[in-house]
Amino acid sequence: MNLGDIAEKIGGKVIGDASLEITDVRHIESAEEGHLTFLTGKKFLDKLKQSKASAVLVDSEQEVEISQVITPGPMLAFARLLDQFHPQSRPKPGIHPSVILGENVVLGKRVTLSALVCVGDNVQIDDDTVVYPSAVIGSDCSLGKNTVIHSNVTLYNNSVIGNHVILHAGVVVGADGFGYTLDEKGRHVKINQIGNVVIEDNVEVGANSCIDRAAMGTTLIKEGTKIDNLVQVAHNCTIGEHSILVAQVGIAGSCELGHHVVLAGQAGVSDHVKVGDQVTVVSKSAVLRDLEGHSAYGGIPAVPLNIWKRSITVLPKLPDLARKIRDLESRLNDIEKKKSEE
Amino acid sequence: MNLGDIAEKIGGKVIGDASLEITDVRHIESAEEGHLTFLTGKKFLDKLKQSKASAVLVDSEQEVEISQVITPGPMLAFARLLDQFHPQSRPKPGIHPSVILGENVVLGKRVTLSALVCVGDNVQIDDDTVVYPSAVIGSDCSLGKNTVIHSNVTLYNNSVIGNHVILHAGVVVGADGFGYTLDEKGRHVKINQIGNVVIEDNVEVGANSCIDRAAMGTTLIKEGTKIDNLVQVAHNCTIGEHSILVAQVGIAGSCELGHHVVLAGQAGVSDHVKVGDQVTVVSKSAVLRDLEGHSAYGGIPAVPLNIWKRSITVLPKLPDLARKIRDLESRLNDIEKKKSEE
Amino acid sequence: MNLGDIAEKIGGKVIGDASLEITDVRHIESAEEGHLTFLTGKKFLDKLKQSKASAVLVDSEQEVEISQVITPGPMLAFARLLDQFHPQSRPKPGIHPSVILGENVVLGKRVTLSALVCVGDNVQIDDDTVVYPSAVIGSDCSLGKNTVIHSNVTLYNNSVIGNHVILHAGVVVGADGFGYTLDEKGRHVKINQIGNVVIEDNVEVGANSCIDRAAMGTTLIKEGTKIDNLVQVAHNCTIGEHSILVAQVGIAGSCELGHHVVLAGQAGVSDHVKVGDQVTVVSKSAVLRDLEGHSAYGGIPAVPLNIWKRSITVLPKLPDLARKIRDLESRLNDIEKKKSEE
Repeated sequence: MNLGDIAEKIGGKVIGDASLEITDVRHIESAEEGHLTFLTGKKFLDKLKQSKASAVLVDSEQEVEISQVITPGPMLAFARLLDQFHPQSRPKPGIHPSVILGENVVLGKRVTLSALVCVGDNVQIDDDTVVYPSAVIGSDCSLGKNTVIHSNVTLYNNSVIGNHVILHAGVVVGADGFGYTLDEKGRHVKINQIGNVVIEDNVEVGANSCIDRAAMGTTLIKEGTKIDNLVQVAHNCTIGEHSILVAQVGIAGSCELGHHVVLAGQAGVSDHVKVGDQVTVVSKSAVLRDLEGHSAYGGIPAVPLNIWKRSITVLPKLPDLARKIRDLESRLNDIEKKKSEE
Repeated sequence: MNLGDIAEKIGGKVIGDASLEITDVRHIESAEEGHLTFLTGKKFLDKLKQSKASAVLVDSEQEVEISQVITPGPMLAFARLLDQFHPQSRPKPGIHPSVILGENVVLGKRVTLSALVCVGDNVQIDDDTVVYPSAVIGSDCSLGKNTVIHSNVTLYNNSVIGNHVILHAGVVVGADGFGYTLDEKGRHVKINQIGNVVIEDNVEVGANSCIDRAAMGTTLIKEGTKIDNLVQVAHNCTIGEHSILVAQVGIAGSCELGHHVVLAGQAGVSDHVKVGDQVTVVSKSAVLRDLEGHSAYGGIPAVPLNIWKRSITVLPKLPDLARKIRDLESRLNDIEKKKSEE
Repeated sequence: MNLGDIAEKIGGKVIGDASLEITDVRHIESAEEGHLTFLTGKKFLDKLKQSKASAVLVDSEQEVEISQVITPGPMLAFARLLDQFHPQSRPKPGIHPSVILGENVVLGKRVTLSALVCVGDNVQIDDDTVVYPSAVIGSDCSLGKNTVIHSNVTLYNNSVIGNHVILHAGVVVGADGFGYTLDEKGRHVKINQIGNVVIEDNVEVGANSCIDRAAMGTTLIKEGTKIDNLVQVAHNCTIGEHSILVAQVGIAGSCELGHHVVLAGQAGVSDHVKVGDQVTVVSKSAVLRDLEGHSAYGGIPAVPLNIWKRSITVLPKLPDLARKIRDLESRLNDIEKKKSEE
């Protein structure tokens, strides 16, 4: 493909040499001659000028010597071109002879069940879905079209997985929620968890993350949400559409998150908390109360982000402040003493 | 079952219609006609009044129109009834032909070894225990009666698992503790971890949690303790009876926790720390020193909970306080200056 | 072996009875008669005096009644002796009949592939390497010599694992990094992750930890680094040589850690951060900015450790300080009021 073809494909405009042959797409640092890269912000302009790339995707014309393609979303265009230049390989369709199939399993077209996959009874797996080696699909599960289940994933019974979903290795969907009540002798009695998990279309879940089944009803991950590695989603949560849960986030039971929520790494949310649409919570924060939408928060406990940012600048100065207060007290004591002596 | 039968079974007293047919037990929000629900605190009374439930378990008579069963522990009664109305299904006993058995494996009665389970040498598995697909039981392990090992669990060699234990998918028991010492050239030399893990009766461990083997001796999880998902228990820890470790808690090496300890989500405990009986630590806290029993703690580092609660209310006001101190200083300077001029 | 033999082996000097027969090596608490233990610091001297050990490894002569071996590194000597007295058992070399092998797999000498292991195409596994049951090795991977892959590990395609590496159960190497960009409709579009993971020699990775493949290029774990359980290393990170990542640490994308870095439990590092050589970060800390080497840090956000230590002593006193400020204000108001009335 030459640069003109690429511009046409992504709906962009060439400034420079449209006949330039593009052999790969790359990040600024690793691009070589013949490669197309992308720019996402003026601060990388210096890096771009040092890059060996032959062309660049930009959102507005830049003063650079290489050819440019102007497009409103350079990174989005890059992501799509990456898919073209490096199409994801998929194992061939078919059922490996070592697969263990339960009764009444219904498979769509071009399904791949890799070696040592185990599928329970009454499972439905739709067209083009791929299950990698050693994954376990419990009974009464359903998987949509074009979904990918990686190795060593466990789906407990009754899990419902949508279309174009990716579950990375070691993910556990539908383990029992953490629910107990004390008996007369102070022992924890298990409350049977009879609900399930539903994961909607276009969700991706990172390696070794866990999404517990509901106590009753459904733990729900809505369309387009992306979950990173080692994330915990407890029973009866609803995670809204197109949200982002970064690695090691933990969400306690019965929370409701809106759409386009972003929880940064290692953040936590207490049980029964509602988080509004388009909320961002910075890393390490603890959300203990409901948060209104369209706003950013931080801290333990989480407060509006600007407040948290100002307060953390004071933290290292606390010993100084404490000393100053002691000093002020002593000076004020002196003044008051003199007053009373007057 | 009618309401009278239920009351008799749980030792409760009917107020209302004992002949009422009960078709299911449900939470307040999802209960329908014919269902029995439960009330745990006055604050849910409004929800109960809006519920479609036909009857309710309560600890004292309430002013509601539906029938009531009075019992000292409504939630405990509910948990037991749930078990009756929704008995947990178990796979049929038997050894799937794909199971790989080591030498000298001794199986009790009605044991289930599901597809693709791998069992090492010299393993003992007692009556009614179920192992789900693709779990790996190392050599010289023993599993008690009526225990459930879910898919993709790994038990390293020499692990001892009690009766009525549940290990959820992806749990790792007995991996090496994290022990090294530096050599002359600044390289970490592994200290072989030759101990094991013992998990006593009635313990439940959540998905993808890890309990490391002891360096020497035993990492011990005592009876009745419940561990949530993605929890880390390091080598040589002892977790007391009937304790609760919520998701993503991390406990460093050689800690001793008492009985009925509760560590909320994402809390951490430093190595060699002793936590007394019936201690509660709130989420996100860092326990760096021994904690006396029968008390609650919070913060990084953890302090008595009431102190932490008061101090976090001040955190967002720190910039204001710093400004006020500057203001006080300047006013005091003025006064002192005038004094000296007098 | 008698004590003289041991001293010779480790290059130490006996004070006491060189002919003493040593039957095992043990920690101070669990040592019995005939056992050799070690002392690492004066504070354990009392414990040593109460120990039943017959001999002790010390770095300088101690006033104890039992025999001593003086060596500059008692713990290092202990680690090496432990290896002698308790050699780690390894499964016999060979390919279990249940193993699933792809095309063009090249195996070195004395390789062990245990039951239900699955190996993809074009994989190379070098001499003496052991793969435990149910591990999955993706296509185009290479494993060095004398490496150990535990059960239920997943290596995605193109992973490169060095010599003498240990990957504990449930580890996931090479899952997709967490990279998306928004499209015109606010949906997250996946940026294909076309890089890989390289793990150098002598690295150990704890149970259920995750190391993501690079977006492009390589996520790199350098020689001798030790990673504990449930740790997250995101795409495009470089972790320097001989570093220590304690349990539940999370490192966001594109970070560069130097050599001999120590991140204590549950610490986190934001994306694109550089951490200098020999940096120590205490548990629970959040590293949001680059850290200079050869220093220690703590806090959220992380600041130099001595500053953090002083500021956390003030935290519990914040309510008192706030009250004192109000009090000072009121007293100052009084003084100013009187002044103005004069």
